[in-house]
Amino acid sequence: MRDSHIDALVEIVGERRCLWQPNQVRAYACDGYTAESGLPRAVVFPESTDEVAQICRYLYEHEIPYLPRGAGTGLSGGATPTGGQVVINLARMNRLLAVDFANLRAIVQPGLVNLTLTRRIAHEDCYYAPDPSSQSVCTIGGNFAENAGGSHCLKYGVTTNHIVAAKVVLPDGSVIDVGAPFGDAPGYDLLGLLVGSEGTLGIATEITVRILKKPQSLRTALAYFDRVADASDTVTDIIVAGIIPAAIEMMDQLAMQAVDKSNYHVGYPNDIEAVLLIEVDGLTAGVDDVMERVVELCRKHHVREVRVAQSDGERALWWSSRKMAFGAMGRLSPDYIVQDGVIPRTRLTEVLQKIEGISRRYGLRIANVFHAGDGNLHPLVLYDSRVPGEAERAVRAGSEVLRACVDAGGSITGEHGVGIEKIGEMAYMFSEDELQVQRAVKACFDGKGIVNAGKLIPLPGRCVEVKHAREIIDDHWQILNSFPDQAEVQVRAARAEKTAAKPTTSVQG
Amino acid sequence: MRDSHIDALVEIVGERRCLWQPNQVRAYACDGYTAESGLPRAVVFPESTDEVAQICRYLYEHEIPYLPRGAGTGLSGGATPTGGQVVINLARMNRLLAVDFANLRAIVQPGLVNLTLTRRIAHEDCYYAPDPSSQSVCTIGGNFAENAGGSHCLKYGVTTNHIVAAKVVLPDGSVIDVGAPFGDAPGYDLLGLLVGSEGTLGIATEITVRILKKPQSLRTALAYFDRVADASDTVTDIIVAGIIPAAIEMMDQLAMQAVDKSNYHVGYPNDIEAVLLIEVDGLTAGVDDVMERVVELCRKHHVREVRVAQSDGERALWWSSRKMAFGAMGRLSPDYIVQDGVIPRTRLTEVLQKIEGISRRYGLRIANVFHAGDGNLHPLVLYDSRVPGEAERAVRAGSEVLRACVDAGGSITGEHGVGIEKIGEMAYMFSEDELQVQRAVKACFDGKGIVNAGKLIPLPGRCVEVKHAREIIDDHWQILNSFPDQAEVQVRAARAEKTAAKPTTSVQG
Repeated sequence: MRDSHIDALVEIVGERRCLWQPNQVRAYACDGYTAESGLPRAVVFPESTDEVAQICRYLYEHEIPYLPRGAGTGLSGGATPTGGQVVINLARMNRLLAVDFANLRAIVQPGLVNLTLTRRIAHEDCYYAPDPSSQSVCTIGGNFAENAGGSHCLKYGVTTNHIVAAKVVLPDGSVIDVGAPFGDAPGYDLLGLLVGSEGTLGIATEITVRILKKPQSLRTALAYFDRVADASDTVTDIIVAGIIPAAIEMMDQLAMQAVDKSNYHVGYPNDIEAVLLIEVDGLTAGVDDVMERVVELCRKHHVREVRVAQSDGERALWWSSRKMAFGAMGRLSPDYIVQDGVIPRTRLTEVLQKIEGISRRYGLRIANVFHAGDGNLHPLVLYDSRVPGEAERAVRAGSEVLRACVDAGGSITGEHGVGIEKIGEMAYMFSEDELQVQRAVKACFDGKGIVNAGKLIPLPGRCVEVKHAREIIDDHWQILNSFPDQAEVQVRAARAEKTAAKPTTSVQG
Repeated sequence: MRDSHIDALVEIVGERRCLWQPNQVRAYACDGYTAESGLPRAVVFPESTDEVAQICRYLYEHEIPYLPRGAGTGLSGGATPTGGQVVINLARMNRLLAVDFANLRAIVQPGLVNLTLTRRIAHEDCYYAPDPSSQSVCTIGGNFAENAGGSHCLKYGVTTNHIVAAKVVLPDGSVIDVGAPFGDAPGYDLLGLLVGSEGTLGIATEITVRILKKPQSLRTALAYFDRVADASDTVTDIIVAGIIPAAIEMMDQLAMQAVDKSNYHVGYPNDIEAVLLIEVDGLTAGVDDVMERVVELCRKHHVREVRVAQSDGERALWWSSRKMAFGAMGRLSPDYIVQDGVIPRTRLTEVLQKIEGISRRYGLRIANVFHAGDGNLHPLVLYDSRVPGEAERAVRAGSEVLRACVDAGGSITGEHGVGIEKIGEMAYMFSEDELQVQRAVKACFDGKGIVNAGKLIPLPGRCVEVKHAREIIDDHWQILNSFPDQAEVQVRAARAEKTAAKPTTSVQG
């Protein structure tokens, strides 16, 4: 309904950049997490920091809930209005503002598409490293909000490692700069706090990122394993050997089936349990030797076949088949939920077995596609929403998978964020004291609690879980509290071979 | 004076671990920044998280100011009591609690010495990467508080990149876990906020760090340059070529003189302006080729002589001469102040010229020793405290050097922290609005404002500066606000050669 608040927003951005009619705003009712949605009160399209600040100032003063939105590709509901909020859509703020090639920095507006940045700096052999699967459509602002990852995070780190400074509009509309383009900024790391805060603490309107020189060379290998455990041990051994590949991706049999049924016809054997896609990069001198060592380690762990890509075309096919794995699930099932848990690398086999158990118990197939080098799993729970009760069962199965990750000493998210989707699991990872500190930080920025409220940090009422994940983590580490003497402490060296499938080393007195 | 509060502390830790007599506590009146000091009310030595929590709870309840202390090697006064505080000394909490070699993680107590950690995991070819010059005595807890750096941060990052989780005692004595041993922790990045917070937000009592496998091989080169500008251009060119050396260190003539007068006799030529110490590491296959390219780039920029270390002994000598440069200043001057500013790499020559001007104007010699690859300068202002007024002049000269760094688009600290020393410069870098957000964060953790108060974040009264560094940074970037059309935006490719000694590229409509 058009009211005085809509008038006020129109005053700031003009009629054309303020949508409020239900048929216009319906497209903004959810992001890539489609399980929940709500109609926004209005959607505004600012074109400058000043417009964003004016909008926020007005809304905050009038206590009208609002949230920011990028391309809406998020997978956890971070950009989903739960109903009645104003959506601040940053899509029109999509300019590359400045590039400093000599010092490897660029300043972008939040609506700039991730891959567009890389394309616009490619003529100087530069690129932007974080590469979520959605990189051809998702925005740097959205990546900032969700602390997005990607296949190459193993070597290069997630978004927070690539953002060095930002201009930020705070909930009340005031504007501050955080971080420092060169050198760590002194004072509290507000930039680090804002990255991954899912739009709950402020809106970045100018983002200074680190850009990288493209590696001179890369080599990509595809390795077929009869047994998941062997693939998993190979991953651990590569890392323990001191090799840091640009990426190590794994898919299980079900995921391979889906991919082979789609347009990306790699021709995976039908009877293998796992495929590894391993990429190493760096200066030309050296990459062949590194790849040779990787191949050796695959052989040590009984690889059935391992091939190194002989052309850019072959490499591109392998990568496409991996990056399109989520989409390919449509060949196997009308619906699926993608999960996003992290575990210690060495516990891969054990957790995959647990996931198999969950799959059996719920009578739902679960495909596994993941960033194996980081221990970042993406189990895909397949279901059919037309079958009554199956969607709910899938959600419950997904939730159990996440808890299995936490129980192994891991985390409920590697790169997709918490949003609405995983807010119930936050209390499984954190104690009530810990959540209270999170809430205090939120209140410190947004005293009225109206900016993307109900995302990321559960409100006190929502904490239904009592289990505290830290006990599990302590258990994983087996910290012993009674050392007789520092000098007598012995480090029991855990060789990778011994620990690949069981709890890891501890120190004993 | 022994009073009921001392009794209460003794109750927690026992008589032996609570010092309160002036002659006992005098040793804790300052840290490595000796310009200010104050007598602590007491110094307590807890041995467990629980004891730390009890101490904090008692002090917070009774509103008795306190601060934590590691080895006291900090260079900015972070561990200096300004008078009357209780010092919580973590020296006795120095155990290595657990190591997980397969997943490359270790859990340590805050009092564990940096180099001791590396030594205790060396038998598995592992090490802890951040390597401040004080690494043989400074503690991981102190590194955590100051977000310490080191020579190898160019490739490996500073402390915040190597700490993944921590158990933290908050100002009021409550205990929370922050971060996640595996995967980024969901929610706000409280761990990132705590690292570098200089003991003002809480005390880490268990720290989980990333450990690394030692690089298989390394090559180290020493390069003599007639002109600083050539050395500086070489550094930029190496990075722009896509090479990331483990370290690139630079010393100027005055620093070389000091070192050659001390026990580390490298034999630097008398008439060169700069020496570069360049180290590359990685798998054996490849390092020689990388070093060859580095040598080529040195030659391109008129290096007078460049040598690659032929033995571990030679490499060790070169490194010692660099690491002991601060100490060697004693050969040239009875006193010195070491500064710690960061600048964009490409503006090295220009800033060094400014520093020379400052040196001339104040009539004080300034030696330059720095992490050139990171643009992290350590100008050493030499003075004689016996000459009336010279100490004050040195402080003012140091402050001007920092401002020159900020004016070049940099920062007032790379790795030494703000502490007491640079608190006046915070208002030169940040606007009052930005400092207010910092104060709000502080208040969110420490509502009573009694934990290491007066460090890091200036209290409102202390902001005497009006200049706002961000304007300078915007100027450096030359961001233009009136692009006619995104499609027309042209990225003017800044080649390193052109920009090495002048302001960098911008985008224009």
